[in-house]
Amino acid sequence: MGGSIAKAVMRGGLADAVRVWGRRSSGVDEVLAGDWGGEVELMATTDLGEVLSGADLIVLATPVGVMRELGERVVDFLEEADAIPGRVVIDIASVKARVMVDVAPVFEEAGISFVPCHPMAGSEKTGWAHSRADLFHGAVCIVTPRVGGDEETVGRVTAFWEALGSRVVKMGALEHDRAVARVSHLPHAVASVLVRVALCGGAGELAGNGLRDSTRVAAGPAEMWSEILLENREAVMESMVDFQDELSEMLAILERKDEEGLRWFLSHAKEMRDGLEGIKE
Amino acid sequence: MGGSIAKAVMRGGLADAVRVWGRRSSGVDEVLAGDWGGEVELMATTDLGEVLSGADLIVLATPVGVMRELGERVVDFLEEADAIPGRVVIDIASVKARVMVDVAPVFEEAGISFVPCHPMAGSEKTGWAHSRADLFHGAVCIVTPRVGGDEETVGRVTAFWEALGSRVVKMGALEHDRAVARVSHLPHAVASVLVRVALCGGAGELAGNGLRDSTRVAAGPAEMWSEILLENREAVMESMVDFQDELSEMLAILERKDEEGLRWFLSHAKEMRDGLEGIKE
Repeated sequence: MGGSIAKAVMRGGLADAVRVWGRRSSGVDEVLAGDWGGEVELMATTDLGEVLSGADLIVLATPVGVMRELGERVVDFLEEADAIPGRVVIDIASVKARVMVDVAPVFEEAGISFVPCHPMAGSEKTGWAHSRADLFHGAVCIVTPRVGGDEETVGRVTAFWEALGSRVVKMGALEHDRAVARVSHLPHAVASVLVRVALCGGAGELAGNGLRDSTRVAAGPAEMWSEILLENREAVMESMVDFQDELSEMLAILERKDEEGLRWFLSHAKEMRDGLEGIKE
Repeated sequence: MGGSIAKAVMRGGLADAVRVWGRRSSGVDEVLAGDWGGEVELMATTDLGEVLSGADLIVLATPVGVMRELGERVVDFLEEADAIPGRVVIDIASVKARVMVDVAPVFEEAGISFVPCHPMAGSEKTGWAHSRADLFHGAVCIVTPRVGGDEETVGRVTAFWEALGSRVVKMGALEHDRAVARVSHLPHAVASVLVRVALCGGAGELAGNGLRDSTRVAAGPAEMWSEILLENREAVMESMVDFQDELSEMLAILERKDEEGLRWFLSHAKEMRDGLEGIKE
């Protein structure tokens, strides 16, 4: 995701320079080896100070579990460096309450602007090689600023995501976590269960496009998703229990051979799915 | 599906003539109004006798619930008509035990060759307008012939599906129903439940490609799927119960914050999903 932001900024000519920090030199080498094209200067290094120096938009693209630690290192550096007008730090993690509790105060206490963001984009493929400049085009980006925070800063962050082609939606961090549990984390959990149950009898050679589509997200990186589901554990579990209840209702309908009930259930689902596409047949 | 077979046969020049029977004249008119191209003669009519006269491959493309009745009408006609060497009747329903029990005997008693087939192709879009000549290309077609049936007839049916670009898999009707419950019917049930739970809070505007892919099959026609799920009720319920069990296991893992357990669960799912693509990252 961080790589896609870098590429999008360079492709769009949205900055004079893009600087990528990596924990490992192998990651940095991969960035430098890529053919980025375009006019924007690209630097990649394992030296955090070098990356932060003079930066006006700082994107934290680490897992939530290590973000506070990175945030503290960033603050240490920025407190020593000259202040830059309009400077703002954002993150792009897919859970937000934990970021508000854990990471935001580190910046607030130091008087550094921080706006939590969640670009709802990405694919089951990760890493620099799969990053794409057009990843955010047409995507929704949720921002969850602190209530009473600086509107101008939020406006700058909003403008940034819009320049990348995204539509920005503002909401509270808890509201975000609950909504995203349903539209993103639950589908991942369900796809992972489905692929195990569908293929347990070795029926893989019979799988068609339906199963392929239904389980695509389960091909995402297990480590990353494991962290996401645990970070948003309560909201995810709530949505999974709702799923269990609905599935039990469908089972009961089948149990009593209730044709009308089943048609209604599937029609209602079809209607909601059609609404998702904005297309009615 | 019937329309796609007609188009594929015409496109491939696999017959001298294709004749389409429809219950309603509106359906027949739609077929005749289409621009089929190609050299093969096309007839469409509501007159069953006209369609059957001289036909050597007869495809029953009705829902299972009315197939026996249609089969009896077909038999009545064929018993009066001149026998055609190599003539065979097939169906293309997605459940097979019911066809074996309900429909196959009608033909067997009349000495007419009958081979149940299930082309594992199709999309959430139905009707003549959405039928496609290339629908069966690269798809699996399952045939479930009677044990001890005529091998030569099965060979002819196999060759037909192969000419349409499909790979033929032979299995028993019950085995078919159980396997298809897992790889096709369960995914439909799950997608229908998922779309309801994911969108119940009105979070539709946050939905990304993940949810869209995961729920695509739920856009299929409710009436058709309702019939399919009820026809294959026992195998579908069995797979739904297995799904409930696996989902409960995942819930328990989240409940006890078992990082390692969750990583293992998701890794295993990812491995199975990667195997489905034949692609490892």
